[in-house]
Amino acid sequence: MAAATEGLNAMTTVPADLALAAATGNTIVGETAVLIFIPVTCVIGILFAVMQWSVVGKISVRPSGGPALNYPLMGDEGLEDSSVVTRCAEIQEAISEGAVSFLMTEYKYLSYFMVGFFIVIFAFLGATENFGTDKKPCEWDETKVCGSGLMNALLSAVAFALGAITSTVCGFLGMKIATFANARTTLEARRGVGPAFKAAFRSGAVMGFLLTSLGLIVLYFTILVFQQYYGEDWIGLYESIAGYGLGGSSVALFGRVGGGIYTKAADVGADLVGKVERNIPEDDPRNPAVIADNVGDNVGDIAGMGADLFGSLAESTCAALVVSSLSDFGKEMNYVAMSFPLMITGAGILVCLLTTLVATDLTSGVSNIKGIEPALKQQLVISTVLMTPVIALLAWGCLPDTFEIINGADTKVVKKWYMFFCVACGLWAGLLIGYTTEYFTSHQFSPVRDVADSCRTGAATNVIFGLALGYKSVIVPILAIAFTVFVSHTLAAMYGIACAALGMLSTLSTCLAIDAYGPISDNAGGIAEMAEMGPAIREKTDALDAAGNTTAAIGKGFAIGSAALVSLALFGAYINRAGITSVDVILPKEFVGLIVGAMLPYWFSAMTMKSVGKAALAMVEEVRRQFNTIAGLMQGTVKPDYKRCVEISTDASLREMIPPGCLVMLTPLIVGALLGKETLAGILAGALVSGVQIAISASNTGGAWDNAKKYIEAGGNDHARSLGPKGSDCHKAAVIGDTVGDPLKDTSGPSLNILIKLMAVESLVFAPFFKTYGGLLFVLWDKFVEGK
Amino acid sequence: MAAATEGLNAMTTVPADLALAAATGNTIVGETAVLIFIPVTCVIGILFAVMQWSVVGKISVRPSGGPALNYPLMGDEGLEDSSVVTRCAEIQEAISEGAVSFLMTEYKYLSYFMVGFFIVIFAFLGATENFGTDKKPCEWDETKVCGSGLMNALLSAVAFALGAITSTVCGFLGMKIATFANARTTLEARRGVGPAFKAAFRSGAVMGFLLTSLGLIVLYFTILVFQQYYGEDWIGLYESIAGYGLGGSSVALFGRVGGGIYTKAADVGADLVGKVERNIPEDDPRNPAVIADNVGDNVGDIAGMGADLFGSLAESTCAALVVSSLSDFGKEMNYVAMSFPLMITGAGILVCLLTTLVATDLTSGVSNIKGIEPALKQQLVISTVLMTPVIALLAWGCLPDTFEIINGADTKVVKKWYMFFCVACGLWAGLLIGYTTEYFTSHQFSPVRDVADSCRTGAATNVIFGLALGYKSVIVPILAIAFTVFVSHTLAAMYGIACAALGMLSTLSTCLAIDAYGPISDNAGGIAEMAEMGPAIREKTDALDAAGNTTAAIGKGFAIGSAALVSLALFGAYINRAGITSVDVILPKEFVGLIVGAMLPYWFSAMTMKSVGKAALAMVEEVRRQFNTIAGLMQGTVKPDYKRCVEISTDASLREMIPPGCLVMLTPLIVGALLGKETLAGILAGALVSGVQIAISASNTGGAWDNAKKYIEAGGNDHARSLGPKGSDCHKAAVIGDTVGDPLKDTSGPSLNILIKLMAVESLVFAPFFKTYGGLLFVLWDKFVEGK
Repeated sequence: MAAATEGLNAMTTVPADLALAAATGNTIVGETAVLIFIPVTCVIGILFAVMQWSVVGKISVRPSGGPALNYPLMGDEGLEDSSVVTRCAEIQEAISEGAVSFLMTEYKYLSYFMVGFFIVIFAFLGATENFGTDKKPCEWDETKVCGSGLMNALLSAVAFALGAITSTVCGFLGMKIATFANARTTLEARRGVGPAFKAAFRSGAVMGFLLTSLGLIVLYFTILVFQQYYGEDWIGLYESIAGYGLGGSSVALFGRVGGGIYTKAADVGADLVGKVERNIPEDDPRNPAVIADNVGDNVGDIAGMGADLFGSLAESTCAALVVSSLSDFGKEMNYVAMSFPLMITGAGILVCLLTTLVATDLTSGVSNIKGIEPALKQQLVISTVLMTPVIALLAWGCLPDTFEIINGADTKVVKKWYMFFCVACGLWAGLLIGYTTEYFTSHQFSPVRDVADSCRTGAATNVIFGLALGYKSVIVPILAIAFTVFVSHTLAAMYGIACAALGMLSTLSTCLAIDAYGPISDNAGGIAEMAEMGPAIREKTDALDAAGNTTAAIGKGFAIGSAALVSLALFGAYINRAGITSVDVILPKEFVGLIVGAMLPYWFSAMTMKSVGKAALAMVEEVRRQFNTIAGLMQGTVKPDYKRCVEISTDASLREMIPPGCLVMLTPLIVGALLGKETLAGILAGALVSGVQIAISASNTGGAWDNAKKYIEAGGNDHARSLGPKGSDCHKAAVIGDTVGDPLKDTSGPSLNILIKLMAVESLVFAPFFKTYGGLLFVLWDKFVEGK
Repeated sequence: MAAATEGLNAMTTVPADLALAAATGNTIVGETAVLIFIPVTCVIGILFAVMQWSVVGKISVRPSGGPALNYPLMGDEGLEDSSVVTRCAEIQEAISEGAVSFLMTEYKYLSYFMVGFFIVIFAFLGATENFGTDKKPCEWDETKVCGSGLMNALLSAVAFALGAITSTVCGFLGMKIATFANARTTLEARRGVGPAFKAAFRSGAVMGFLLTSLGLIVLYFTILVFQQYYGEDWIGLYESIAGYGLGGSSVALFGRVGGGIYTKAADVGADLVGKVERNIPEDDPRNPAVIADNVGDNVGDIAGMGADLFGSLAESTCAALVVSSLSDFGKEMNYVAMSFPLMITGAGILVCLLTTLVATDLTSGVSNIKGIEPALKQQLVISTVLMTPVIALLAWGCLPDTFEIINGADTKVVKKWYMFFCVACGLWAGLLIGYTTEYFTSHQFSPVRDVADSCRTGAATNVIFGLALGYKSVIVPILAIAFTVFVSHTLAAMYGIACAALGMLSTLSTCLAIDAYGPISDNAGGIAEMAEMGPAIREKTDALDAAGNTTAAIGKGFAIGSAALVSLALFGAYINRAGITSVDVILPKEFVGLIVGAMLPYWFSAMTMKSVGKAALAMVEEVRRQFNTIAGLMQGTVKPDYKRCVEISTDASLREMIPPGCLVMLTPLIVGALLGKETLAGILAGALVSGVQIAISASNTGGAWDNAKKYIEAGGNDHARSLGPKGSDCHKAAVIGDTVGDPLKDTSGPSLNILIKLMAVESLVFAPFFKTYGGLLFVLWDKFVEGK
């Protein structure tokens, strides 16, 4: 530490533009290496994504010409190649059109919101420092020069816009590749399950690598550019950068909530009329809502989930940066150590790249149906195992031997190997959460089978057992999170927690690839059904889809787990930035915050579930209307009006997301302004500890019901056959559970991630305002009590 | 304050046995008045209960002789009086026998548990002070003499036993009067709805007044007796007294959890076979589980609920006493001020007595079906309005003008009129919670009607809308609790919160009367059905029952609201006793506690719901077996084997309550011992803020589903008729919702009250142990980290 302090003293005279060159002597890796390494990993990631995309693109969806015709078609399908391919292409076109139309409408509203919120950020933060235009001496060190109030506010708002735009671009590209790959996966299924798996998985990888790489490289350059203005004022610099996380998370609100309502309104609406009233199978082309249903997979499960995880990545990085900028790294302007969080993500891209190659090129790949799920799970294990020594290397190379990290009013002395434990703990907790989720949602294991079994006595017992399963499934993930929190906080305070979150997210590219694989396979199955391809093809796409269901649940568990850590890290950063030294829940302000905060996830879930219900009922009416008024629709001689259903889902979801969106966006502002920063801290803690439980239980309950239904449908063993077949009373009870689970697992559950993260990052960004002006009501109350 | 301090100095030389006489100069009411007032109110309450019991007893259930025959029978019923009366008496006998048999079995296990826990308390607390047998100088004032370690431990254990025994006696007597009144209510229904209402309501009042009066008088005398030993050591005295709350709450664990599983196993089991498979109406005497179902109402909703609220009353009183003994009142040995919490309850008995007379004697009573619900709701309003000035009087008379209350490491100066606000805030918050619950669960209002409407599209939408309703219904109660907490904590720290809880519970006798009215009416309806009385009688008992459903929901809301305040007050007392100065959730130990604590209600609910599911399946099998093997059962020519079903419910519920019981009882001990008092504080806060939400939403969801079904069945307006009639698809969907709601509203939801209260009071009692020996694991961990 002595050397560092000397460096610090020396540095105070260094001109701002040379700041980058200072104080890296005490890390093994040099500054240049870091400056080169991060963008290079991003470029590699982007190139890899483009390459995968072009490989998928080689599969032709035109009936004549192109390499597609060179593939040996499986004769036993009895398919007229050209007509089937044409139909697939048409359906793909319709889905893609619907998805683009929804996203474009969403982006229209999103842009209004962004402009509005840009102004709010600028106004609130600017007001805190009276829109001062001159650089001024820093509060924390009068000898240094800090950014002006106006520029602080402006750059925070700019960072917000950059985060939002990057997240939007990633989500859009993800949706594009998914709607590009769905029909191609269907067509590849004619060649066998292996090629179809590769098509879907490669496309998922495109999404994974694009998102991580773009997210990192934009952040990297934003920091470099902002540094030109801030110079020595690294605290100001990284406080502005926090806007990036807020931007990413705001888009996630639209993606997860809006997309979540969209997808389930269409799904539930299609099922209620199609399966229940008209007795036609899922994805039947006669169902007017079927295209909307498939669009929903792309906008909800791809674009929405992508935005959610983009938000997590951006937020945890920002949280780590804010905390470390207030500590040694920031004070010493140690660029290498400061970049440790970015290095983790960068190295993660390379590790995930290697992991992806295992699935697509280095091994013989998936040869039969049973091999699909293990191949996907293998990806998680391989990436986690490979990442572990890499973390050790990064901690060894990029961090000083010991350093101090801010811890409330105190500081904590951290040794560099501590950080290995923090990051690794997060990484492995992610894997543990994934495996627990699998145990509770895959029909390989007893919990889902018990739920299926409870269908014997009807839908009521199915629902009771399903809810109980969801409640039970929170135990291990919460203990894993608690353990991670304890270890990382004890070792490195809030910085440790932010780094643990980054550890969990270090394998993000692989996790996203697996996640995105699910909806693509789901779509592929839908297209096969709609294109009326034979049962042999359906069997393959169904198997791809079933594996996708489990991995989707794992992905959700992972998203929630990381959201919990991220939001705690943001909470820690907020505490530091707002100048709060303790959140003592014995005190009334904090306790009131805590209990009201714990209530918010319920309020939010009530809104989102009711929204899905209302939107689904609107869809039901339209589908009924079409069946009743369009002659020849049930006979399949006339096409339904798919577009109308797409419009209804679009309108309903965007209208319905406004109230929950307002709840999330306004709560921190109102509470912070009226009840003050302490109550807001309580709110954040309460929402976090309560929301994470509902989110996990909702996701797993829904996943379990879905797979209990699939278990009965597939009839893979004697027990399953005794409950089936499709259409039996047991199966009907299972379908009811599945429908109840839809909004739980795909709307209200995952949306809670956004609730807990977005409120935290918003509080972080507005912390200076609350610190200066917050708590109006309590000021009045104190006057009232003292006045008596 | 000067006078008080002088008094204190003077008192240090006063011999122990004269302590009672000291330092009451600064209150308006004298000590003798308090010493007389409290037992007198209790005796009045007990006499009133006995009087009501004897009035109900005048209704004869013997076919000949007695005053019953003097009643003019309503001719249009076409009932053979003697045979109907005989049948009613037989059924009553069977229900009573089943209830006694269950309770006796429960008490057997309870007694083992109590003996075991008596020893645990003695051992843990004794070990803290090395089982010292000599009185020793007090830690807080070396000039005073404090109780020996051995006696502290022993008297705590004795208080525990007294609390447990009193609660058991109250529950048993409540069950006795309920099974005494059910058939009498049925028989009175022949004379009209008014007399039947009075019979049920008077019986409920017996339960209400007995419980409150017995609870208070035993506590009063226990304090007087213990005072003989403790002398000047009022801190030691009231710390031992805290065992009384623990005892009451332990019985509630058995009552609420065991009773809750019992009642719903029987109910769900009876419905699944009876209504769904065999298509016979509810309470049909051919159903073998029908007696068990009716027994369940008495053991779950009467004995269980009574024990729950007894626990709340005992615990909040103990919490207030512990906190004030550590403050001025205890130090100055101000008996009058110290007794303020007991005075609230005592005065509440008189207020409730007056309120009851309004319903039974002072007004013309209920004259038609529509008058039932208003009459019951009136009770709540009247008692709340009457109680308000009484509180002001008590605060004015029993408290010094200003006094100091301990507040963490600090103290807080409290004016006596502050206490009026604290208590009144709790009182009115209770009414507000009651009204909100009614809004969300009565089919008079739109929420339940919306849920009923959603049955048009099937059971799935019904479940989705019901869950969303439950989530939404937490908002107002939580805000009411938060407001109460804020006001009372700001005014008088944790003492304010304990007094707010007592304010909410001050109308307990009336609330219990209304609560107990519900299951009695439910039983009355069941007996009418089983005795095959005509539809005119059924209509009246159904109307009594429907009103009871709403008031039951209100009662649950009230129980949960008070549990939240009680548990917070206990939390505060624990903090003080364990010597914790802050529960800062930024710190890892506290945060880990918080998030794991928030998880516990889910774990607990998973267990209780699964338990109901499993026990119900066991019941289903037995009922099916009887229908399949007993010839003539469906034809009604042969009686089913009711006893076997009662046995199955008894065995299943007692077996199934062990795991959730262990979770509640062991968590504080294990966490406190291994992870320390800070983590335990986090656990308590987390469990409180998370548990209260699930409890409210579960109760209201279940209540709403139940009443949505009843709304469709009753067909009271065009909308309801468009959904019905009984047996329509909509109605079937509603029945599924109702069945799902059963374990939510009667088992897992209300049981959570016990979870949050019992963990808190247990922590309070064992606080000295955790303070001395707690946190083993962290000691080891610190060694590990420092050792490196």
